[in-house]
Amino acid sequence: MANRREQQRLKSRSFKRSDCPLACALDIVGDRWTLLIVRDLAFGKSRYNEFLGAGEGITTNILAARLRHLEAAGLIRKTLYQKRPPRYEHQLTETGRSLGTAITALVKWANEQLPDTRRTRLR
Amino acid sequence: MANRREQQRLKSRSFKRSDCPLACALDIVGDRWTLLIVRDLAFGKSRYNEFLGAGEGITTNILAARLRHLEAAGLIRKTLYQKRPPRYEHQLTETGRSLGTAITALVKWANEQLPDTRRTRLR
Repeated sequence: MANRREQQRLKSRSFKRSDCPLACALDIVGDRWTLLIVRDLAFGKSRYNEFLGAGEGITTNILAARLRHLEAAGLIRKTLYQKRPPRYEHQLTETGRSLGTAITALVKWANEQLPDTRRTRLR
Repeated sequence: MANRREQQRLKSRSFKRSDCPLACALDIVGDRWTLLIVRDLAFGKSRYNEFLGAGEGITTNILAARLRHLEAAGLIRKTLYQKRPPRYEHQLTETGRSLGTAITALVKWANEQLPDTRRTRLR
């Protein structure tokens, strides 16, 4: 289900709700998972099992769909590190890395405005 | 469908995937629509039809669900401006307004990294 929807999104790169930059950004990162994967990549995770092991319990099919989506949008690139069976490592591109400011702003907002949040020291 | 899911989310305010502040933020604003409504509120829109008229073509049932969700999360408050039929105006609370920094960061990211985006001058 998530896969089918994701494929439709990728197929139509014409998928764009408006030319408002916020809407364009949310077309790419406006879901519950994508920025969490970018967070994990920023902290040095690169392999499938490392993402699966993060605290939020992402499922394999959502993870696979989001990684495809991130690659198609130019936010990550992947490299083969094992041939049989094929296994990939993922790295943020410059476009992906530059989401750091937005992530930091959301973390700061949560720290200041949401009660039950783990306090995070920001650099 | 969106309504049912939204109601489940609201019912279980225990709905929290982890205590990572980014995950907590995305539990509230991690979808394609919520931040667009916050944007419209920040630009002075307050009534149902004004949100419906925004460029992204939000549907009435998603809009209603998101407004309930924003109110339950303490990001907006509503006031009755007409009794029959009941009609409400919506305003950002301090918690909602303080999302401005994160929105600005996403707009800046889109302006710099996504080609087909309308350039927006940031204050």
